[in-house]
Amino acid sequence: MSIEPLSKTVAADMLRTLRSKRPLVHCLTNEVVQEITANVLLAAGASPAMVVAEEEAATFAAVADALLVNVGTPYPARLRAMHASAQSAAQHAHPWVLDPVAAGGIPWRDGEIRKLLLKKPDVVRGNASEIMALAGAGSGGKGVDSTNASDEALASAQRLAADSGAIVCVTGETDYITNGTRTLAVTGGHVMTTLVVGTGCSLSALVAAFCGAVEHSEERLEATAAACLLAKRASERAYAVAPAPGSFHAAYLDALYQLTPEAFLS
Amino acid sequence: MSIEPLSKTVAADMLRTLRSKRPLVHCLTNEVVQEITANVLLAAGASPAMVVAEEEAATFAAVADALLVNVGTPYPARLRAMHASAQSAAQHAHPWVLDPVAAGGIPWRDGEIRKLLLKKPDVVRGNASEIMALAGAGSGGKGVDSTNASDEALASAQRLAADSGAIVCVTGETDYITNGTRTLAVTGGHVMTTLVVGTGCSLSALVAAFCGAVEHSEERLEATAAACLLAKRASERAYAVAPAPGSFHAAYLDALYQLTPEAFLS
Amino acid sequence: MSIEPLSKTVAADMLRTLRSKRPLVHCLTNEVVQEITANVLLAAGASPAMVVAEEEAATFAAVADALLVNVGTPYPARLRAMHASAQSAAQHAHPWVLDPVAAGGIPWRDGEIRKLLLKKPDVVRGNASEIMALAGAGSGGKGVDSTNASDEALASAQRLAADSGAIVCVTGETDYITNGTRTLAVTGGHVMTTLVVGTGCSLSALVAAFCGAVEHSEERLEATAAACLLAKRASERAYAVAPAPGSFHAAYLDALYQLTPEAFLS
Repeated sequence: MSIEPLSKTVAADMLRTLRSKRPLVHCLTNEVVQEITANVLLAAGASPAMVVAEEEAATFAAVADALLVNVGTPYPARLRAMHASAQSAAQHAHPWVLDPVAAGGIPWRDGEIRKLLLKKPDVVRGNASEIMALAGAGSGGKGVDSTNASDEALASAQRLAADSGAIVCVTGETDYITNGTRTLAVTGGHVMTTLVVGTGCSLSALVAAFCGAVEHSEERLEATAAACLLAKRASERAYAVAPAPGSFHAAYLDALYQLTPEAFLS
Repeated sequence: MSIEPLSKTVAADMLRTLRSKRPLVHCLTNEVVQEITANVLLAAGASPAMVVAEEEAATFAAVADALLVNVGTPYPARLRAMHASAQSAAQHAHPWVLDPVAAGGIPWRDGEIRKLLLKKPDVVRGNASEIMALAGAGSGGKGVDSTNASDEALASAQRLAADSGAIVCVTGETDYITNGTRTLAVTGGHVMTTLVVGTGCSLSALVAAFCGAVEHSEERLEATAAACLLAKRASERAYAVAPAPGSFHAAYLDALYQLTPEAFLS
Repeated sequence: MSIEPLSKTVAADMLRTLRSKRPLVHCLTNEVVQEITANVLLAAGASPAMVVAEEEAATFAAVADALLVNVGTPYPARLRAMHASAQSAAQHAHPWVLDPVAAGGIPWRDGEIRKLLLKKPDVVRGNASEIMALAGAGSGGKGVDSTNASDEALASAQRLAADSGAIVCVTGETDYITNGTRTLAVTGGHVMTTLVVGTGCSLSALVAAFCGAVEHSEERLEATAAACLLAKRASERAYAVAPAPGSFHAAYLDALYQLTPEAFLS
């Protein structure tokens, strides 16, 4: 399968669409990264909302433009809210993104991730170890960090996409985005992002935002890749002015806010 | 009803009181903004404490100087802790502040907010859409963001104050603080605060801190307005040095720490 | 009992060990400080993982290099995960650290902290008021802040260490680290850390990381002190460039990342 670069023009158009539509992104994410997830969405031009109780999550998923489900710190009540929200989002044709944090590490968690996969996410975004574990290859990462490079996970991503019907996005030094038939690649970025908690998790939220902003489901492969491109360009800009993790965090948010669609074209 | 500006001298005195008393603020707030809420209180000169379990929250509310109840991410166990804490604070004549996040959006949440309102908060702090929804006008915001300007909510705020007995503080481009009889206005601030999650929620915590610092309950209208003034002045200073959301967040905390009572007088 | 300074050479070696081993630290911490705790560990050179559900926490504690248990916002389900994880860590000879937040304040919480102490933590890290309360002296702090200086708590720390078998680390203007027989002291730091929520809590995570990095349990007294030294040096560096709490927070993370083992030797 050949690998295509993401069209810069398409990516710029999608960032323009995100900023004009300002999609409302319903986030059911883990305890550690809620603040950075909200701030990443706000800086990029989307509107975050964390509505987490079983009593109201599905109701809210019906009105939000997209849903993020991140299983970094799952427990039964939150998992029930995730299932109900995913079902509600799907019923209303709103895209939902699954971030299978630490897949391949603990049998109980893997079982829960499998159940969510059965609810047919539109996109699965993970690191190489997570995607390989979901595809039945590899043995999982060390905690939440990947022990594999994204290149190693490309075949797994393509197989997982073909098997599940989801767009699969495996991120790392190169990000690969595939629907099992077409595969896009996005290069660049900076490894400093691995020293700020939540940069990966909040990228999944950006994927939800871009997918929630485009009009047609056929555009979601490019929308997912455009989210990856925005994150990579922002991390490059941030590192250029702030080469240590505390100030990099702030600079990353600044860059997400300051990057224009035109900046993608150069 | 005429609208008065907040006296600069009174506001300066209240900031001086806050810094010397260093009130202990019991925060029952949402999952997303706990860190920024604590940091805003610390920077401004108060002492935050998040004691959240049903088993101990009411006990702690009896000793803290003020209580914040923010329903951004409510669920049954946390709501029980909120009710018990509100009752305990009221019994000990400690002020408590209700932040009705996303009121007007979801029936279940609205029902829970109504139940908390029946516990008679001393102050209700919200955005225009939330206050209008509580007063029976308007149809709620888009997620957690207001779709109305604060001017549109002024009459609703005054009616809600008269009906509930609470001071009502509706924030936006202009902040209005009313007890149904007197209405204060605070102008200024910067819209960049809307791109940093938790600036509104932590303003409610500042309101609790200022109300917990003053000696007499009659001073709480001005105390609430003084909290608004501090937040507006801090956001202006922050934007002047950091016009993008990541660095603005840090600069906002810096400004809360650096602003002196004298700065209110100029 | 004489008080020894921490050997600079030993501290430098331990930081070198931390960076090369990159220990996986399992964190069961409070709701407020999860993000800063993860970022402090990442910046310093460790790998954080928050695996919090009863269903998987003990399984994960068996594979992580160290465990942190911080009771800042305890509630029954999380306490069960803490007990199961502490037991699992101990069974696998992985060090675990107890941070008894706000000990001495609320009877229910004190009872829960006592139950955790009975599970024999390898290190207890707290402020003066907390350690004095655990040792049966003093009456607890005001909320989560200490109302005592660390010097006042030294005798309590030594008694608690002798009674419990744990290394006790009481932090403040001077940090004391004792096993009841030997006592190390670490001086320096900056009081600005008290205006950023989670600097104390994340120091307990650093203690877990250093203890998880060294090979022998006999090295844990020095490892705990080395964690304290890293935090103190980082706060000094941060204050030198950022004397207000918002920018200090970022600068503290930057300093944790930038400090080299050699910097301990000068």
